[in-house]
Amino acid sequence: MSSKSELWDLFDKHFQEIVRELSISPVNGGNEICWSFERIKDLLEYNAPHGKRTRGLTVVAAFKTIAGDGISEDEMKLALTMGWAVEILQASFLVADDLMDQSKTRRGQACWYLNPNVGYQAVNDGMILETCVFTLIRQHCKGKAFYADIFDLFHKVILNTLMGQSLDMEASEQPTVDFTLFTETKHAAIIKYKTAFYSFYLPVAIAFYMAGINDEQCHTAACDILTKIGCLFQIQDDYLDCYGDPEVTGKIGTDIEDNKCSWLIIKAIQLATPEQIRILQENYAKKDPEKVAIVKRVFDDINIKPIFLKHEEETYASICDEINKFSDPRVPHSIFLDLLNKIYRRKK
Amino acid sequence: MSSKSELWDLFDKHFQEIVRELSISPVNGGNEICWSFERIKDLLEYNAPHGKRTRGLTVVAAFKTIAGDGISEDEMKLALTMGWAVEILQASFLVADDLMDQSKTRRGQACWYLNPNVGYQAVNDGMILETCVFTLIRQHCKGKAFYADIFDLFHKVILNTLMGQSLDMEASEQPTVDFTLFTETKHAAIIKYKTAFYSFYLPVAIAFYMAGINDEQCHTAACDILTKIGCLFQIQDDYLDCYGDPEVTGKIGTDIEDNKCSWLIIKAIQLATPEQIRILQENYAKKDPEKVAIVKRVFDDINIKPIFLKHEEETYASICDEINKFSDPRVPHSIFLDLLNKIYRRKK
Ligand SMILES: [Mg+2]
Ligand SMILES: [Mg+2]
Ligand SMILES: [Mg+2]
Ligand SMILES: [Mg+2]
Ligand SMILES: [Mg+2]
Ligand SMILES: [Mg+2]
Repeated sequence: MSSKSELWDLFDKHFQEIVRELSISPVNGGNEICWSFERIKDLLEYNAPHGKRTRGLTVVAAFKTIAGDGISEDEMKLALTMGWAVEILQASFLVADDLMDQSKTRRGQACWYLNPNVGYQAVNDGMILETCVFTLIRQHCKGKAFYADIFDLFHKVILNTLMGQSLDMEASEQPTVDFTLFTETKHAAIIKYKTAFYSFYLPVAIAFYMAGINDEQCHTAACDILTKIGCLFQIQDDYLDCYGDPEVTGKIGTDIEDNKCSWLIIKAIQLATPEQIRILQENYAKKDPEKVAIVKRVFDDINIKPIFLKHEEETYASICDEINKFSDPRVPHSIFLDLLNKIYRRKK
Repeated sequence: MSSKSELWDLFDKHFQEIVRELSISPVNGGNEICWSFERIKDLLEYNAPHGKRTRGLTVVAAFKTIAGDGISEDEMKLALTMGWAVEILQASFLVADDLMDQSKTRRGQACWYLNPNVGYQAVNDGMILETCVFTLIRQHCKGKAFYADIFDLFHKVILNTLMGQSLDMEASEQPTVDFTLFTETKHAAIIKYKTAFYSFYLPVAIAFYMAGINDEQCHTAACDILTKIGCLFQIQDDYLDCYGDPEVTGKIGTDIEDNKCSWLIIKAIQLATPEQIRILQENYAKKDPEKVAIVKRVFDDINIKPIFLKHEEETYASICDEINKFSDPRVPHSIFLDLLNKIYRRKK
């Protein structure tokens, strides 16, 4: 089996093929709209390849682990392509999310919508990226036994993600700060739906279907573990939004300003004194940097850092337990453990 | 066969079923995200049912015409559902388009994104509506012989529409007014891609597939006629943007302010004197109502109204010719003629 960096190189090299394929006018396009297809190239190159690529690489790694060493060159190519489909789906979500959140930077560069001549066009561009995903699926999976499964999978996962985004924004876009809306149950639903399904279940599920694993029982059990890993990942994201190093994460956090129902504020509400709650209520969701600093001070005062670290440890241990209980001879535990260990104590 | 208004009533009544179906949490959703599904109901009811419904009704009417009187109740229901799928796709495009164009009104009400607590969430909402389309297709067409064809059709048509929108915005979002970018070829590509495929080919093509007509030859010939009808429709839309009655059209035109590559400006550039060109160049694409009025005066001075009416007549006649040459015993000419006559000399 190839080493981590060999796989990275292979995956990286494959991107150019993906771009070439997607930026050529399709059958019924012809030359009438060749202009637009030039745009797809820029769109892909700016938004798809600069992330950590965990999701895309997971498709390939998981498929190799399950299918074993005997996989053909064609199967390997398909896994690489499906890996990029997931990365492009992620790009589609991020292009839309950054516009909606009015973020400034992403992966160390300006958010796409902030580029000259983009602006609101980012809405259309996000939808184009989503369409690219389905172009790849159609062109590479049609005729395979798992075609319909892969289609349905993407469709369901996209719906879940959009529902999660909806909840996330509904919770944060209230005209006034209302902490009664920020419950642990709501936070749990938001992070599971907006992040966990597409980031963790989707890549592994693709590998499952490609390897012929399509029974509901195995998918449900794996989905349960993978969305738990995904929820830990999103809680880390909430934590890094406030305490991460922008040089390392590639983005500047704005959850406090944006009135986000984040893990930090949920914990703070649970642990704060009435006086601290009052301070939070006065200073949360304000664009003023001084008010943001006051909120961070309350977070510090209630010792949120060690509380987060303890939560990370405990969640890690409990997911490990659940992985140990998973028993399907077709699926080695390393698929879950590798993912869990990749995100454990992450700084970016 | 039922009369036009009976069909309208049937179609109207079916909408409640569609809403019910789409706003119930799906299998893997459960109760965790019931909040988000309440939102889908609002989203659908605000954005899907207030249009002319030409696209949706066309699916049903065309299917009835091709399949004849012997269609079953189930087939009829499926046609109604697919009709709503097209109307919801249209809603998805409009929600995004109005945000991107910063429009104010649509179908006589405020644009969705202007509603309280919507704003940028409209981006996500547009994507949710698109996902609803595929939910309907999956839940109602899965297992049918035409499932893959319908899927591919929607996918290709969505891609074409997004490409057209891209071109439309690219042409208009230049920092300065540059009439050399406004060519007849580019205008032809914009209107065909952003409007004609989804508005005219898509509904008829769905009826074709449902009735078992899936050969490329028939689809290509029909697509050719239908996109021509669609281009006439969009040229009328460009005309009505300036000369329509907002009380009748339900929207206030802003193409002049928005630097749109519209049929009117294309014609004006072709017919204006150098002095008039200078005036257009100075006053086009400015938010100032006085400058808009100056542009309209130039349009009037070059007699754009009769030129448009002549174009409409000639195009109508030429499409009629083409329809007469279409000969496939399975497809009565009335399918094309009804559509053409419905839009001919339209005021809204
Ligand atoms: Mg964001
Ligand atoms: Mg967000
Ligand atoms: Mg975050
Ligand atoms: Mg518009
Ligand atoms: Mg537009
Ligand atoms: Mg218009």
